[in-house]
Amino acid sequence: MKRIGIADTTFARVDMASAAVRSLGATGTGYRLYRRTVPGIKDLPSACQALFREEGVELALALGMPGKAEYDKTCAHEASLGLQQVSLLERRPILECFVFESEAGSEKQLARLATRRAEEHAENAWNLLFRPRALARRAGTGLRQGFADAGPARPVS
Amino acid sequence: MKRIGIADTTFARVDMASAAVRSLGATGTGYRLYRRTVPGIKDLPSACQALFREEGVELALALGMPGKAEYDKTCAHEASLGLQQVSLLERRPILECFVFESEAGSEKQLARLATRRAEEHAENAWNLLFRPRALARRAGTGLRQGFADAGPARPVS
Amino acid sequence: MKRIGIADTTFARVDMASAAVRSLGATGTGYRLYRRTVPGIKDLPSACQALFREEGVELALALGMPGKAEYDKTCAHEASLGLQQVSLLERRPILECFVFESEAGSEKQLARLATRRAEEHAENAWNLLFRPRALARRAGTGLRQGFADAGPARPVS
Amino acid sequence: MKRIGIADTTFARVDMASAAVRSLGATGTGYRLYRRTVPGIKDLPSACQALFREEGVELALALGMPGKAEYDKTCAHEASLGLQQVSLLERRPILECFVFESEAGSEKQLARLATRRAEEHAENAWNLLFRPRALARRAGTGLRQGFADAGPARPVS
Amino acid sequence: MKRIGIADTTFARVDMASAAVRSLGATGTGYRLYRRTVPGIKDLPSACQALFREEGVELALALGMPGKAEYDKTCAHEASLGLQQVSLLERRPILECFVFESEAGSEKQLARLATRRAEEHAENAWNLLFRPRALARRAGTGLRQGFADAGPARPVS
Repeated sequence: MKRIGIADTTFARVDMASAAVRSLGATGTGYRLYRRTVPGIKDLPSACQALFREEGVELALALGMPGKAEYDKTCAHEASLGLQQVSLLERRPILECFVFESEAGSEKQLARLATRRAEEHAENAWNLLFRPRALARRAGTGLRQGFADAGPARPVS
Repeated sequence: MKRIGIADTTFARVDMASAAVRSLGATGTGYRLYRRTVPGIKDLPSACQALFREEGVELALALGMPGKAEYDKTCAHEASLGLQQVSLLERRPILECFVFESEAGSEKQLARLATRRAEEHAENAWNLLFRPRALARRAGTGLRQGFADAGPARPVS
Repeated sequence: MKRIGIADTTFARVDMASAAVRSLGATGTGYRLYRRTVPGIKDLPSACQALFREEGVELALALGMPGKAEYDKTCAHEASLGLQQVSLLERRPILECFVFESEAGSEKQLARLATRRAEEHAENAWNLLFRPRALARRAGTGLRQGFADAGPARPVS
Repeated sequence: MKRIGIADTTFARVDMASAAVRSLGATGTGYRLYRRTVPGIKDLPSACQALFREEGVELALALGMPGKAEYDKTCAHEASLGLQQVSLLERRPILECFVFESEAGSEKQLARLATRRAEEHAENAWNLLFRPRALARRAGTGLRQGFADAGPARPVS
Repeated sequence: MKRIGIADTTFARVDMASAAVRSLGATGTGYRLYRRTVPGIKDLPSACQALFREEGVELALALGMPGKAEYDKTCAHEASLGLQQVSLLERRPILECFVFESEAGSEKQLARLATRRAEEHAENAWNLLFRPRALARRAGTGLRQGFADAGPARPVS
């Protein structure tokens, strides 16, 4: 039984964790879930560290939704660097799943995008732990999460 | 009895620490406070490290108020990265509560915003330590500190 | 027998790993390959760490293709910092081979550029491990990967 | 007898170290000084590390003067991040005292500003080590170094 | 006999290492040189780490020449952060000597600037190891490498 961690925030405007949980359930079995909710994205690295150290999870999903302001980009950057750092310190992968409010034109689109991206990153999480060859088979094929895949570039002729 | 640390600065133009202390007192009991005041926000990471190592606090509130100049944004960014780093090195959460002078239109608004944000982050601190489920119940609901909550985005129909 | 790691992504739109493998085969022998495919470039540092720790590789090639959006530059920057960090933590070199979608004018050019750059970085990887003097002999001569070499600047007369 | 370190550069155009030394002398006693001069601000983190490890100082003052070019801002940012890092690695505070050439309108102003800021940071250094309550009493009062204090914002009415 | 390391790149368009070697020879004796050539500036941190760990050098000179594109500035920034990091991890100074292609108007100027800057940083390296007081005597005097010195600002009258 593998352990998967989910860290999310009260700042986000969509319940991305529930979408991730549903998606994991639809993708496969063999895991147990642990969860931490923190105020904002800058608190996610510490939450992931707690999931690794206190719950023994092997992989963490970090779900966050930076706001629309210019400053929110800086916060997201800082959070990302913290997530990288804790992943390397604890030697465990973290899949960062951020949705910027500015990516969507309406609240409805925002909810849809955040839901879809969380679902697809959850699927990636399951594959990384249980079926890494599924990822290797799709290397370099232009996959995207939340939006349509870009697809492979036309090969050199 | 849990230990909570508060680090603040002489640079800030509002006594955010007093607001945080009052808010903690109104939120709950079961903790003891430790405090360090340093010159500016870039000194906060070192102050938090001292609170963790010398006072044994389990969580630190880092209160700061970057100035209006462009360079102050860089300083805030550097301070944030330092706070992330010390949080991960010491394996303890730090709630960063920064108020940019440029967020407020007047001194009065600035004082109000800084006071309110410090209060709400202090409440978050107490919840993280004593009632983590209170945060989990509000995951993805668009909470904000110092301003009105953004609220949840309308669900996918 | 030395061990070389290759980390790549499903996000990239060109199969750079295959190009690197072919190029290594054409450059020399004496090595065994290990590979990890992850969703995006921010997952490459963790993948390289796994290659170092779990497979014992002595050098890793990190292959990635950031997208066209402004935000993708930030992601690439974060991934680069993570790659630096893991290289220093694990005390092993990582050759970062990133191709930005915006470097190419068409999909065909993109495929060609990504293929060529991966090939040339693979050659560098082999030289670093087996023939470091080949690099020393070309120090300061303006070599490039994927594009034509810039060549040495005209000497001081 | 406490040990205080001073790190400065040959790049700076004002002898800030002498100003700091004078100011420390006027503020109090009970300390011994150690000094390292390096070429530029990016060398200050390594100099501070040497002061901590080889001289056993308990606090370091890092004095620097970034130039006027855009690139100098990047260098200052990198130096600041290095100073944060070494402070946390060695678990000792570093007071960063940087004066940007562009902050002053003339060489005379530059000399005055650099001198005054070094003096005031030296005073902060002494207080941090010997009289931390002096800082706590002035928390949130808008102190500045080198320029006039901003003062506290008007309280919430 | 002290050990000095030199790390340089095949990307640079000027053989800065030869200039540094000549300058060290003209400045003093008492050292032995070790060298690593890597593809680009982002590979310099790993090369310096190898020089520290495998060759036991006490100081490293990191020579690099970022290209003209906007992206090259980002690469230089990442390389600088990596150099800071390895310097602090290994507790040894690294003198970074970067010359941006955009600093020079012609190839001839570029060669001259790169040569001169490498020479002057090599002299700094020798002084740091063998004659640190020579640097202390010139603290705050506005020295530059590769260009004319800025000189001290006029003192406060």
